[in-house]
Amino acid sequence: MGDNIFVVGHKSPDTDSVCSAIALARLMELTGSSNVVPCSAGKINKETDFVLSYFGIPVPQVLESVEAKQKMILVDHNEFGQAVAGTDQAQLLKVYDHHKIGGLQTADPIYIRIEPVGSTCTIVAKAYKENGITPEKGIAGILLSAILSDTVIFKSPTCTELDKEIAADLAAICGVDPKTYGIEMFKASSNIADRTPQSMIEEDLKAFTMGPHKVGVGQVSLMGMDGFEDVRAKLTTELENYKNSQEMRYLCLMVTDILADSTELLVSGDTPEEIAKAFGKTLTAKNSVDLPGVLSRKKQVVPQLTTYFQG
Amino acid sequence: MGDNIFVVGHKSPDTDSVCSAIALARLMELTGSSNVVPCSAGKINKETDFVLSYFGIPVPQVLESVEAKQKMILVDHNEFGQAVAGTDQAQLLKVYDHHKIGGLQTADPIYIRIEPVGSTCTIVAKAYKENGITPEKGIAGILLSAILSDTVIFKSPTCTELDKEIAADLAAICGVDPKTYGIEMFKASSNIADRTPQSMIEEDLKAFTMGPHKVGVGQVSLMGMDGFEDVRAKLTTELENYKNSQEMRYLCLMVTDILADSTELLVSGDTPEEIAKAFGKTLTAKNSVDLPGVLSRKKQVVPQLTTYFQG
Repeated sequence: MGDNIFVVGHKSPDTDSVCSAIALARLMELTGSSNVVPCSAGKINKETDFVLSYFGIPVPQVLESVEAKQKMILVDHNEFGQAVAGTDQAQLLKVYDHHKIGGLQTADPIYIRIEPVGSTCTIVAKAYKENGITPEKGIAGILLSAILSDTVIFKSPTCTELDKEIAADLAAICGVDPKTYGIEMFKASSNIADRTPQSMIEEDLKAFTMGPHKVGVGQVSLMGMDGFEDVRAKLTTELENYKNSQEMRYLCLMVTDILADSTELLVSGDTPEEIAKAFGKTLTAKNSVDLPGVLSRKKQVVPQLTTYFQG
Repeated sequence: MGDNIFVVGHKSPDTDSVCSAIALARLMELTGSSNVVPCSAGKINKETDFVLSYFGIPVPQVLESVEAKQKMILVDHNEFGQAVAGTDQAQLLKVYDHHKIGGLQTADPIYIRIEPVGSTCTIVAKAYKENGITPEKGIAGILLSAILSDTVIFKSPTCTELDKEIAADLAAICGVDPKTYGIEMFKASSNIADRTPQSMIEEDLKAFTMGPHKVGVGQVSLMGMDGFEDVRAKLTTELENYKNSQEMRYLCLMVTDILADSTELLVSGDTPEEIAKAFGKTLTAKNSVDLPGVLSRKKQVVPQLTTYFQG
C-alpha cells in the first residue's frame, strides 16, 4: 500500500465507475503523478468485463476496504454509504462525479468536480482535453463505453450535448460506431439466462439515506423482456431476503427494457405502496410500479423517492 | 426577481466573495447566459470598497434573503450556515469554492467546482481561460485583488503556484504591480481608527458547526499592531455580546498582523482554554492564543478546531 493513491468508484461497480477510475489514473500518470492505482469496488459486472476485453484493458484490482488515512480519489460517487469500507476514515484527495451531492464533509479543502452530465467518464474525457492529451485508443474506447452505458446509448434524460460531443470525439479515436457498438455492449450483458437473481440485484445497486429510511435502488438493463417472467418469482424472493440482510426499509429494482424505453420497478418492503405513491402511481399485482419512459435511476427515480421521503 | 439567477458569496462578505460573484456573473453573460445578477450577502467591507472603486466596478446589490426555489449560484462558500437566509430552500445551480466541503446535499446533480487553491477568484479566472475569454481590465483587477486578499499577497500557506501564475496574468491585463498594489489595498482597509469593534468582528466572520458546537471565527488583518491595544477592551466586550446574540459556543477573532506574519486569536466562550488546547497552546492572560506564523483561517485555524471538536 504505502504511498499508493487508490482511484475507485462505488460498490456494485458499473462500467462508468470502473472505466472512469482506469482512465483518470492513466491521465494522472501521463501528467506526472506516480503510484496512482485504479481499483474496482467489487467484482466487475458482465458489461464491464465485455468492455475491458473488447478494448484490451486489464481488469483493475478489487478494493474491498481501505485503512485509515489511505490516500483516495473517488469517482462516480460521493457518499460514504456507496463507497469502499473505511473511506470515511481515508484521506480523500479528489472527487470526480456526476451525481447529486449527499452530505460529504472534509476537514480540509479538496478538489471536487461534479458536473450534471451523463457519465463520470464524460468529465474525465473533458479533463484529458483540458490537459491537451489525446487518450490512447483503449482508454478512448472504455471512456466511450461508459458514456454509452450510463446514457443508454444517448436515450436517457441524463444525456447532455456534451456527452454526445465527447462520445463522437472518442469514437473517432477508438474507431467504433457508437450506436452499433453500444447495442453489442448491452446485448453482451443482458442475457437473463446467464444471471442469478442475486447478481441482477447486486450488479448496479446503490443505497441511499432518504429521510429516516435506508433505501436500495438497483438497476438491470435488458434488451427486451424475453425470459424475464421465468425468473420473476425467484427474483422477488431474493429481493426480500436481500433487503432484510442489508437492513433496508425498501429495496427497489429497476428492470429496464432499453428497446421499449420502459422500466418496471420491483419493490420489496413492508409498505410497497409508498414507493408507488412517490411516483403518483398505484402498485401492480406483482408488487411493482410500471414506469414507461423511465430509463434513468438518477434523474427519474432517486429524486422522486428523495422528495417523497424527505418532503 | 422572476427568472434572475443570483450569484452570491458568504455572509460577512469579503473581497473574494464579492469579486468572484461579479466576475463569474460577467463570464456567464459573456458566454450567453442572461439574467445573471451578482450580489453581495451583506454590506461590502472597506477593503472591497477600495477594490471596486480602484477598478471602477459598481457595488453589487445586497441580498439579505431569498425566496424558495430562487435560482442561485454560490461562490466562496458551500455551507448553508454561511449563506444568505433561505438558501437551503433555493434552487442551487452551481457552486464555485475553495473551502472544505461541509455537508452540502442536493436533490439533483448540480455543477460543483471546489479546488484547494488560494481564492475562489483563482478558479473563476481559470474558467475565463478555459472559455478562451480574456477578462476586461476592471474584472482582471478585482480578480487579482481577491487573490492578493485571500493569500495575503502570496504569503498565506493556502497560496498555490496556480494562484501566483494566474495573478501574474491578471496583473499584466490590469496593469498594476501585485505587491505594491496589494500593500496599498491592505493599508486602505487596515486602519483601526476607522473601525468599530462590531465592524472588526463582522467584516470577515464565518460560523461553523464543529461537533455539537456552533463556533464563529472572524478575521481582521492589520498592517502592524499600532493602535490595537487602545481598542482591545472594547473589542473583548463586544466579542462576548456578539457570541451571546448569535448563540455561539465560541467566538474567535483572528487579529492578524500581516507585516509580522502573526496572529493573536481572541477567544470568547465559557471555556476559552479549550480553544488554546486545540492548538496545543495555553491561553494568554488576555483570553487569547498567540499563533506566530499563522495567517490562514482556512488552513491554520479551522482544521485544528474541527479536528479538536469532532475528534
